[in-house]
This record gives sequence, C-alpha cells and structure tokens, in this order.
Amino acid sequence: MQIGIIGLGRMGANIARRLQRGGHDCVVYDRAAEAVTALAGEGMTGATSLEGLAEALAAPRIFWVMLPAGDPTEATIAQLSDIAKAGDIVIDGGNTFYKDDIRRAKALAPKGLHYVDVGTSGGVWGLERGYCMMIGGEVETVRYLDPIFDCLAPGLGTIERTRGRHAADDRAERGYIHAGPAGAGHFVKMVHNGIEYGLMQAYAEGFDILKTKNSTMLPEDERYDLDLRDVAEVWRRGSVISSWLLDLTAEALVEDPSLEHFSGHVADSGEGRWTIHAAMEQAVPVSVLSAALYARYRSRRDHTYADRLLSAMRFGFGGHVEIPQ
Amino acid sequence: MQIGIIGLGRMGANIARRLQRGGHDCVVYDRAAEAVTALAGEGMTGATSLEGLAEALAAPRIFWVMLPAGDPTEATIAQLSDIAKAGDIVIDGGNTFYKDDIRRAKALAPKGLHYVDVGTSGGVWGLERGYCMMIGGEVETVRYLDPIFDCLAPGLGTIERTRGRHAADDRAERGYIHAGPAGAGHFVKMVHNGIEYGLMQAYAEGFDILKTKNSTMLPEDERYDLDLRDVAEVWRRGSVISSWLLDLTAEALVEDPSLEHFSGHVADSGEGRWTIHAAMEQAVPVSVLSAALYARYRSRRDHTYADRLLSAMRFGFGGHVEIPQ
Amino acid sequence: MQIGIIGLGRMGANIARRLQRGGHDCVVYDRAAEAVTALAGEGMTGATSLEGLAEALAAPRIFWVMLPAGDPTEATIAQLSDIAKAGDIVIDGGNTFYKDDIRRAKALAPKGLHYVDVGTSGGVWGLERGYCMMIGGEVETVRYLDPIFDCLAPGLGTIERTRGRHAADDRAERGYIHAGPAGAGHFVKMVHNGIEYGLMQAYAEGFDILKTKNSTMLPEDERYDLDLRDVAEVWRRGSVISSWLLDLTAEALVEDPSLEHFSGHVADSGEGRWTIHAAMEQAVPVSVLSAALYARYRSRRDHTYADRLLSAMRFGFGGHVEIPQ
Amino acid sequence: MQIGIIGLGRMGANIARRLQRGGHDCVVYDRAAEAVTALAGEGMTGATSLEGLAEALAAPRIFWVMLPAGDPTEATIAQLSDIAKAGDIVIDGGNTFYKDDIRRAKALAPKGLHYVDVGTSGGVWGLERGYCMMIGGEVETVRYLDPIFDCLAPGLGTIERTRGRHAADDRAERGYIHAGPAGAGHFVKMVHNGIEYGLMQAYAEGFDILKTKNSTMLPEDERYDLDLRDVAEVWRRGSVISSWLLDLTAEALVEDPSLEHFSGHVADSGEGRWTIHAAMEQAVPVSVLSAALYARYRSRRDHTYADRLLSAMRFGFGGHVEIPQ
Repeated sequence: MQIGIIGLGRMGANIARRLQRGGHDCVVYDRAAEAVTALAGEGMTGATSLEGLAEALAAPRIFWVMLPAGDPTEATIAQLSDIAKAGDIVIDGGNTFYKDDIRRAKALAPKGLHYVDVGTSGGVWGLERGYCMMIGGEVETVRYLDPIFDCLAPGLGTIERTRGRHAADDRAERGYIHAGPAGAGHFVKMVHNGIEYGLMQAYAEGFDILKTKNSTMLPEDERYDLDLRDVAEVWRRGSVISSWLLDLTAEALVEDPSLEHFSGHVADSGEGRWTIHAAMEQAVPVSVLSAALYARYRSRRDHTYADRLLSAMRFGFGGHVEIPQ
Repeated sequence: MQIGIIGLGRMGANIARRLQRGGHDCVVYDRAAEAVTALAGEGMTGATSLEGLAEALAAPRIFWVMLPAGDPTEATIAQLSDIAKAGDIVIDGGNTFYKDDIRRAKALAPKGLHYVDVGTSGGVWGLERGYCMMIGGEVETVRYLDPIFDCLAPGLGTIERTRGRHAADDRAERGYIHAGPAGAGHFVKMVHNGIEYGLMQAYAEGFDILKTKNSTMLPEDERYDLDLRDVAEVWRRGSVISSWLLDLTAEALVEDPSLEHFSGHVADSGEGRWTIHAAMEQAVPVSVLSAALYARYRSRRDHTYADRLLSAMRFGFGGHVEIPQ
Repeated sequence: MQIGIIGLGRMGANIARRLQRGGHDCVVYDRAAEAVTALAGEGMTGATSLEGLAEALAAPRIFWVMLPAGDPTEATIAQLSDIAKAGDIVIDGGNTFYKDDIRRAKALAPKGLHYVDVGTSGGVWGLERGYCMMIGGEVETVRYLDPIFDCLAPGLGTIERTRGRHAADDRAERGYIHAGPAGAGHFVKMVHNGIEYGLMQAYAEGFDILKTKNSTMLPEDERYDLDLRDVAEVWRRGSVISSWLLDLTAEALVEDPSLEHFSGHVADSGEGRWTIHAAMEQAVPVSVLSAALYARYRSRRDHTYADRLLSAMRFGFGGHVEIPQ
Repeated sequence: MQIGIIGLGRMGANIARRLQRGGHDCVVYDRAAEAVTALAGEGMTGATSLEGLAEALAAPRIFWVMLPAGDPTEATIAQLSDIAKAGDIVIDGGNTFYKDDIRRAKALAPKGLHYVDVGTSGGVWGLERGYCMMIGGEVETVRYLDPIFDCLAPGLGTIERTRGRHAADDRAERGYIHAGPAGAGHFVKMVHNGIEYGLMQAYAEGFDILKTKNSTMLPEDERYDLDLRDVAEVWRRGSVISSWLLDLTAEALVEDPSLEHFSGHVADSGEGRWTIHAAMEQAVPVSVLSAALYARYRSRRDHTYADRLLSAMRFGFGGHVEIPQ
C-alpha cells in the first residue's frame, strides 16, 4: 500500500524502512530536511511539506504520524485535519494519552476522516524483530490497514504458540491486535508501559540486593562475592523470571558489571503516570506500578525537602543531628 | 554418577527422573513408601530408610535432600550428619534460608562432610526444560558434582547467547552457577524469588487495570471491551515486556479469561520475606518487592483491622458512616 | 457582616450557626426546604431560591457555597454567575479541585465578580472548636472577608504558641491563612487531606500489628494479650505520636476495641487522588500517600483480578493450587 | 524508692534527674566518669563500677539500664546477672528487640532475678513533660515499681480525657501501661516507632508537594508562593492533622523554612525494621510503614545500583541515554 510517514526520528524512520522492505510505498516527511533526504536515498519518496506529502499520496490517503506525544503530534494532526479529504486515514503511532485519541476521533469524524491510534512497542529492535502493535479505531478502517500492520508486526516467528489457543482472529499471534474503538490501542500500550516500569524496578531492586551483598560496608563474614553477570545469565536459562528485559540486563552487565557509566538519573514518560491516573479512576490498587514510578522521580533528585523535614523533626523530638554518612 | 535422593515430591521425583534419564544412578528414599515404589518401578534403587539409602551408595556418597524447608530438611540433615562418613557430600536442593546453610556447613565441616546448597528454579517444567540452579559450597566439591548439575540444567539449548559474552566459565550459559561459599546458592535463589514476586505483581496490577476498564461500574463512554487473551498474546510478540511469566499468563487466560476458578488467596513462601530481611540488613529500598509481598498478605485477609480503624477515625472526625458497597 | 449560605448539610448548617452566634447575619438556602426551615427557626433568614437569597442580601453580596464538589457546586456557581452583580463575592467552601478554582476565577473576573476558595477542615467538631481554613483569592477580597474567617476560625485558644514565631500576620495562629491566589486555598487543603490519609494509615497498620499479635493464629508462646484501649491512651500522653487522630482512635477503641461494627469498606474523596496527581505533575515521590490511598481501594474490593492472576501464574509454573484459608 | 541508673546519656541522665526531683534516691553509674560526677553534683550518689553501684543499693535492688540497644545493653545485663542477688530487679529502659527481652527474662528467672522491659518515649522533652512508658514483665514486679513509673510519667496533666473512658486501671491515663509479660513493653514501643516513621513520612511528603509547588521548575502559571511556616501553623489549629510532630514541624520551619542546614541523610533505628519483621511474621500488609523506612534508606544513598540498572535497560531497548538533569 501507499502510506505517508510523518516524523522520521528513530522510530518513524525504521517503520518506514520496514514497510518499504515489505513492498509498501512510503512517502516521507520530517521538519528536518536531512532526515527526508536520508530516506529518499533509500528509495522512498521525500516530501518537503505536509501539503506536499498529501499531494504525493493517492486517495484514500494514509497518514502515519510518528512524533513525540503532546504538542508536536497535536499540531500536526490539527494541520492534517485541514489538509486531508473525506475518506482519508490519520494514524497516530506515538505515545499519546488515550483520551486525546477519543477527542480527536470525535473531532475528525464529521469531516469524514478516520482516526486510528497505534501503540507501538519494540524500540530500537523493531526494524529487525518487528513491532508489537496495539490498535484502536473503527473495525473496517483497521481491517483496511491490515497489510500495513501485518508487515510491521513480527509475525508468527519462532515463538512457541500458547497452549490451547485457537482464536478465529490470529492477528494477536502475528503481533498486533485491534483492541477496540479510538483510544483503546494507546490505552493498552499505556498499561504495557506501566507494567514495564514495574518489571524493570523488580529486577533493579533484586540486583541491588545482590550488589550490596558484595559490599565492603558489610561485616566480612556476611559478604559474598557474587558475579552479577553470571547470575543474570543463569536466570535466563530455565528460571521463572526469564524475560527479554533480563536478556538486556545480562547484556548490559557483560559490558560493564559496575554500570558506572550510567548516571542513575532515570527518566519517565507520560505513560507511567497515565497508568496511575487510570488506576485511580478505576480505584485499582497499583502499589507496584506506583513504587516503580516514584523510584524514578527519586533518582532524579538529590536530597529531597521531605528528607530534610524528617531530619528536622528528629532533631526536634530527639536532638538527633543528621550528618552526611 | 551414583546419587541418593531424599524426598520424592514433585520436585524430588522429577530431579531423580532427569538424572536417571541422563545416565546417572539414583538411589531414592521417601517417608511415603509408595513414592519409593513408583520410582523403583522406573528403574531406580529404592531404599526404606536413610540408613538403607546410605548403605546402597558407594563412598564418597552424595545425598541430595529435596524436602520442604524448615523442620523436615533440618531433621533429615541432622540425621545424615550421623549417618554420613568423612568425604561424603550433603546437598540441600530445597528453599532453605541461606543463613541456615552457613550454620550447617560450619557444623558438618569438622566431621569431614561437604555441604552444598542448591537453589533450584523450574517448577513443574524442570523435568523437560531442565532446572536453573544456583549453587553454594566449596569450589572442589561443586566441581566434583559437575556431571550432576550438567545433567539437571537446561544446557545451551536454543536460547540466544548474550551478545558480547565470552566467559571462561560457561556453566552459567548451560544453566547453573557456582555463586560462592555455603549459602550463596540459596541467597541468589532467594533474591530470584523476591524478583519473581515483583514481576508477577506488576503483571497482575496491569491486567487488573485492563479488566476493570471493561467494568460496568464505569460510565459507558469510559468503558472498553478489551480481550485480555489477545492482549497477553500480543505482548508475547515483540514487546518489551515479553517473558515466561507472560507466556503462562497467556495460557491461563486462554483457558478462562475470568480466572474465576481461582480463589484469589495467594500464598507466599519464606523466600519473599527473607528477601525483605536481606534488604533491611543492607539498607536497600525495595518498595516493589515489599509491595508485591504485602499484596499477597492482603489477598488472604477479608477486612483488616486496619481498614476498620480507618472507618472508626473517619466516623470520629467527620461523622462518616462506612457501609458496604 | 451579612452573608448568604448555600447548601445546609452538616458543614453548611454548622458554618451558618457559628457565624450567626458570632453576630453575623446569615441568609440561608438549600434545595431541601426543611433544612432552610430548621435554620430559620434558629433566627436566620431563609430563602426559597438562589434568586431569593440574592435579593435578601445587600451589595456587595457574599455567597458562601457549601455543596459537594463537582456537579452540584459547579452548577450553583454557574447560576450565581448570572445572578450576581459586579462587586459581589462568590466563595466555594467545599472540596473543589484547585484547577477548577483557577478556571472559575478567570471566568468570573470579567463580570466583576470576586472568587474565593476556602479549604475547610474541622468536620463535625467545627461548630464548637472552630474551623481551620486555607484560603485562595485576591488579597483585598480576602481581607474584606476577614470578620467572617475570624469568626469561623478557632482563634488563639489554649494551643501553645510555636516557639520563635513572630509573624506580622497572625491569621495563621488564629486558624486561617490566605495561601495565595485562586486555587491556593484548595491546593493546601488537598495536600492536608493527602497527609491525613497517610497519618491514618500509619496508625491503622500499627494497630493491626498489635491486634494480630493477640491472634490465636500465632503459636501460643509468640502471642501477647495487648489491651489496645490502653495502648492508644498511653500514646496520647507524652509520646512522639500523640495527635488528634490518636485521640479519636482512643475514643473509638473505648467504645468497642473489636471495631466490629465497622464494615471495613473505606471511602476516599477526590482530594486524596488529586494529591497524587499533583505529586506526579511535580515529580515528587509520594510512596506513603499513595499506599494509604490504595489501602482504601483495596478495602472496598473482595478478591481482585490481580490476586487471581497471581494464583493462575503460580499454578502455571509450580502447580500450586490456591485454596481459601 | 532507691534505684540504680546505669548509662547517663541524655535519656539516662534526665530520667535520673526526674526521679531525684520526684523524691527518689538515685545511685548512678556510667563508663564515663565525668557523667557520674555531673549528676553527683546534683545530689545523687555516684558509683565507679557496676559492683560499686550494687553495693550502694539496699535489697531488693533495682537496676535501670539505659544504654544503646544491642551489645552495650547485652553486656551490662550479663554482668548484672552475676552481680545481682535473688529478688533484685533488672530494668531495660532502652530500645531492645522484644525477643531479646523474652530470652533474658527466661535466663534470669532461675536466679530469682526479675526482668522488666520499658519502652520509653519522650526524647529530649521527657525531663519536663514526663515520659510515656510501655512496660513488660511480671504483674507483681511492675506493681512494685509503680512509684518509679508514676514519677517518670507525665501524669494526668491538662490533656483532655478520652470520652467514655472509665477503666479500673488509670495508669494509661497517667502515661504508662503494663502491656504484658516480658517483651510486651518493647513490642508496643517498637510498633510506636514504626507508626512514628509513617507519620513523619506522611508530613514530609505533603510538605514536599507544597514546596515543589513553589518551584521555578514549574511553568509560571502553575506555581504558587506558599508560605510553609503559615501552612504548618494553621494546620495546628482545628485541623484533622494536628499533632505533636506537626508542632515540631512548625517550630523547625519558623527557624528556617528552607531546612537547608539539614543534610537530608536520615538515620533509622532498629525499631522501624523490627516492626516490618513483626508484620511479616504476622502477615500484616504494612505498605506505609515500609515505605517510610525505605525513604530513609534511599536518603542515605546517592545513586543506587538499581537506578543505574534501569538506565541500562532503557538504553538496551530504546537507545535512551540517561544524562544528569
């Protein structure tokens, strides 16, 4: 199929490449001209403006927007709502808050535009491994785009099939699902990222216990000298906690078990926070997902005001003087 | 090699089977005579007492104890310390607290007995997939037992090798490590289980958000109708959160997405708690691991006294009357 | 001063009473005629409509809205924005989300209306003890209303003065503060309630440990027979954790130490959730405040889907069958 | 009564002073001679050794040990068990783990020695305000010591009586309780401190939200300029969250609202950790108490290994490079 890709960062460019390799015809646009030139050099059609991109596509046109969530995506979709014609499809493949999808789908519908939200997981590995996609939108529109999703997804591959599974719809097994109407794709992706934070923090805390068990701060007879590279490796093999994140951990530890070239300031994206919002709207206790998010906040602060206030109270009732250790 | 297996529950029996299939010679004992008979029927040598088992083995004898942690294991090892002769090896393959290993190794050493602790992961799948093992003990003793561990472990298999890894010792890649002196094996296994709790709870909370998003308690326009089977399946394919626990989740959901045949009372074993103890000894903040443990405690209680006290306070300051919803 | 009170529930009626007793002149209105009649019987002027209430007040009119946050308050303030005249003052004394205050203040300003938000703590005790108030709005308007706030507040009373304090503005010592522009009052009140949840949960968990230490589930030699009434009482006297919430706890325990007439389903209001939202906007790790909120969510659910999924996974990897205890 | 005080740190010296002022006769001992000299100068009898102290006391002798928990207390009580004679009483007024009390009481009983554990709250304020005491031991021994406890406790004072309370035993109202047999006093004190951590952290998180709401990191129109001194002060007056810890907070903020002279490294004592241990033994979910403890651990670390591992994983799957902010 012919498709327009807007936003040629790491994700957008690789999505375009995977589609092009799969026989689709990509027209690409980015504010940064060199990003367009690069992909044009790989055989795609480059555009120098959104309007130009629209003109280069045959109706019904498919616009895949792959930009940072928030203002950049919002502005581009607003522009597209002017440029696009009835019957065209606007896809937001970024990390948008699902309620924004619902709002946009409602706003575009009267103009005859079809809005599709795609939560995309796969990171830098997607080009080779394929992207795991969670899709929201109208049934027919999502069906119409099937060749696109089929091409981007990992496909059945060598992953063992789930025992007992025989669903009429095999899209999930090929690596993408139509989760529901507008926003459903990003909702599922949001929860995916919430879980991701929790999983990461569970490994992080566990390895921290192993690491500090080697510490010279402990009395000598309470210390071990654990090789964290070997621990990560062995857990990949037959243990209950084997996972892709553990594979990545094993790889990082092989490179440098001290991890000292990482600053320890950990970013968080909107999706971790939105997961907590959703949980609060639904009164779901999400202790682990919150704790994982807060660990990231804390990692970016030096001493908190909260810490100082604890010291102040301790001084107040006990005369304790807190000095740096 | 010739080896005595004590304790023929699910784990012990399967370990014996895997060793026997691997060409080793198993002498087996269990308090329950029928468990012995069953394995004797599969070609192993059955014993009717610990003493009988010891007599059936050639020196240096290897005793693999595979019993519930705590009293049963403790009592058996006490008996073995009388029965065994200098040079013999006592292996605890159960879920023992690592400080008990350290104590036992010290107690057995003067008698010339070698103590080895093996943390074993793999559950009901180990017979076929192999067991992931974390081992503590003296270097030579663990080396001597290598044929046993090599046989029980999954081996290199089809799991992709970790990029950049080239260690002199390839045991980790074959599925077992010698983690350090006495207790180190169970220490690493303990942290493994602590992480396991955290991972499980992260998935559980995420799926709870998905499930409640379908709930008729929400206003109709805030509801989706997500197919949790498909969500679990698609996440197995190219997403960041793919893992073996997710594979099991997908399988359970295929069977019954309501999960209603599970009561929701979730047990916890000593290892989750000991992980928290270790973290406290080392002053490691383990918010996620604790939260995961507490969710299990909470799952086994109806309304807590804590809950009632909150209601009592709310009544006290605000006249709020808490009634069941 | 003359003041109109809209909403005569427990809070609104008592606020009117305290003002009337303090020499102010209250015109009161409620949808429920009998609420109006009751207060009219105490010497206040009753109104049968918002319009009637407005007519009974001299310009500049003061409207104190004391209704449930959300739709009821929103609708009433919308009506008032039509009824009120330039120079009038609209006070929202309820538990409104502070961003709604900011929006409303902006919307009312072009009409010459002054908006004031008042976070009010004190519950059923306010009539006698006075109300602690956190106020947002324009400096002059809040100053103008000083006689109202001064009357409602507890005043200096017998509470010991904070050592070293000598502020030009003694309003805080008399029990109310002008926290800042629109929304600032409700923002501070929101955080107040967030803290309140945390404090309550800390006591609740502690008393739960004491209570279960008496439990016949424990081995006899690990059990105590603690008198929780006496514990609460003694902590009120010279201990670091004495507080008003502890006073209420002591009172509740005297009445019935089993607390069995409380169902254990604990409600939460918007303010606890908004505190978490604010913390997320500001990237503040609020582990305790979140945990306190989630304990309430959990108290209102039987077994969660999350719990069942844990059981399902445990069955999957270990063959564990979770049965009710 | 005549009483020997061992350990003349801040707590021990003030306890001696309060007893002496109350008409009791104190014989005092400390390893540091100058501490003894100081109190001798206030009219007490000084001793230069434990033996000397024992000789200066008439039978049955009362030894109040007020030393750091752990080795110092353990060693002193071991010595006393040799020095003391049948009928003598050994009191541990420090912060001992309650299971150590149980063990000691059992060990001392065959010698006819009576062991009493006293959990003491009150800090630097106890000399003037009196100490809140939670006591474990035999009924008769605790009764015998009543004049001592009565003197040390705050007494009825001006604290309002709990409504509805009329207990045969008014000791709780006077500020001390006999909680149960050996260890019960320290058990209750331990939970007291666990709660204390939770309360402190709740305030700390709340004030952190207020503080960061003033931050220039926020967009200007989302910022307030809250005066935290006034907020703390107003909450002391009629609000639900008034408490002694809040009084101390108000005082600390008056002195310096930035709290910048506190390093933000917050210590924790054994009691916070033991509270978590106890909760785990009793399967009580204590999310808030744990979170409070972990915040302190985290405050004493710079970047954790856990943080770095999160960054390493994020780099692994997304190519994210974490740089300091």
